[in-house]
Amino acid sequence: MTISYDGSFFHGFQRQTKYISVQEVLEEKLSEILKLDITVHGSGRTDAGVHAKGQVIHFDSSQYVPPLNLMKILNKKVYPHIYVTSSEIVDESFHSRKSAISKEYRYYVSINTFDPLKVNYMHFFHDRIDISKIREAMKYIVGTHDFKSFSKNKTVKTTVRTIEEFELNIIDGVLEFRIKGTGFMYNMVRIIIAIMLKVAEGKLEPSDVLRIIDGKERTLAPWVAPASGLYLWKVYYE
Amino acid sequence: MTISYDGSFFHGFQRQTKYISVQEVLEEKLSEILKLDITVHGSGRTDAGVHAKGQVIHFDSSQYVPPLNLMKILNKKVYPHIYVTSSEIVDESFHSRKSAISKEYRYYVSINTFDPLKVNYMHFFHDRIDISKIREAMKYIVGTHDFKSFSKNKTVKTTVRTIEEFELNIIDGVLEFRIKGTGFMYNMVRIIIAIMLKVAEGKLEPSDVLRIIDGKERTLAPWVAPASGLYLWKVYYE
Repeated sequence: MTISYDGSFFHGFQRQTKYISVQEVLEEKLSEILKLDITVHGSGRTDAGVHAKGQVIHFDSSQYVPPLNLMKILNKKVYPHIYVTSSEIVDESFHSRKSAISKEYRYYVSINTFDPLKVNYMHFFHDRIDISKIREAMKYIVGTHDFKSFSKNKTVKTTVRTIEEFELNIIDGVLEFRIKGTGFMYNMVRIIIAIMLKVAEGKLEPSDVLRIIDGKERTLAPWVAPASGLYLWKVYYE
Repeated sequence: MTISYDGSFFHGFQRQTKYISVQEVLEEKLSEILKLDITVHGSGRTDAGVHAKGQVIHFDSSQYVPPLNLMKILNKKVYPHIYVTSSEIVDESFHSRKSAISKEYRYYVSINTFDPLKVNYMHFFHDRIDISKIREAMKYIVGTHDFKSFSKNKTVKTTVRTIEEFELNIIDGVLEFRIKGTGFMYNMVRIIIAIMLKVAEGKLEPSDVLRIIDGKERTLAPWVAPASGLYLWKVYYE
């Protein structure tokens, strides 16, 4: 299933004991419908406040309900903060996380304006910015690098990742960053965006991005952009 | 002051005993800043869930703070669901409601799609619609009419109102209604939109709008479109 959700209503995707998560809601409602204990697997976690336009999940069920019917029934139960946009039967070998070959995230930054109607849906940044410097800095991110400086998670096997695309569009005073890569570590997109904004306001030079990558040390760029601006946009499979 | 707010976080503009309102928040914070009991007057009420991009308020104060400073201090205190976009000293004769000569509202209707990220910010309508019939029906609304069928409030002196403009734009599958008039009664915009949607789906004919106006009876069109799609967009003064 492909699902969309408003991250401001959940404490992230992943199930946890104390707070409501997207996974918990999906598992509870699917278990009700299918009269089975369903475990939902996502393409990856999203943090509290992070939104999804195209999160992908899969689950195993011995009970058959035609996928479009299941989608309709589930959508009534998860309304209004989660919405299933597509549903299909997949091969047993498919795994929403392990089969993913790339992911695209988008990040929205509003510059020097504030809109109380969008407070949970973008990051509001107040400073003069230099677009050409951002574009220069973005080039250093693209490619295959050891992104050790971009994650504090010490349990991952490798910190090498490939960023396939990193684009910037400016729409009505809002910066839209689109970043696509083979995988992203915990907080990695938000760390990259935070660095771009430091460059934008002149607190870092574009070439400092190289220094941060080469340094392989989280403390070199200890910033994280807010969750509200981040959207898991699309997950790509073979 | 011109203010913007996210109506989904308030039980309407007007102060009430039990629930939080925009007026209460503004009065409390302005009273704190000015060390006076401030009474805030709005250009009109907005219901629970109705948003504002350009609500106008005024108040009297014997304490002087330069308007732009006051705006800055107030914005820190009302963050994040209310935002003051302009602030100025006005003549004593000015009254945010009584001096208003027109008001513009906008109403957003998404057709046959659902977006969990916009659930509080537009109305989601699921039916085939006929745009040409909506446009025909809209023409009957424009002008000076007795809108008695469009309000259940029996305390108003007159139910005659003038609708100066009523436009429809379609942007990415979303209908944007813009309606400007000399005054609107309680629920009047939401009743007009509900009628337009009945016409859109073929449950009323465009000419039924004339019949509803001429009938002067609230029961002729007992529908009200949801608050989530409605924005008080702009208040006009001399």
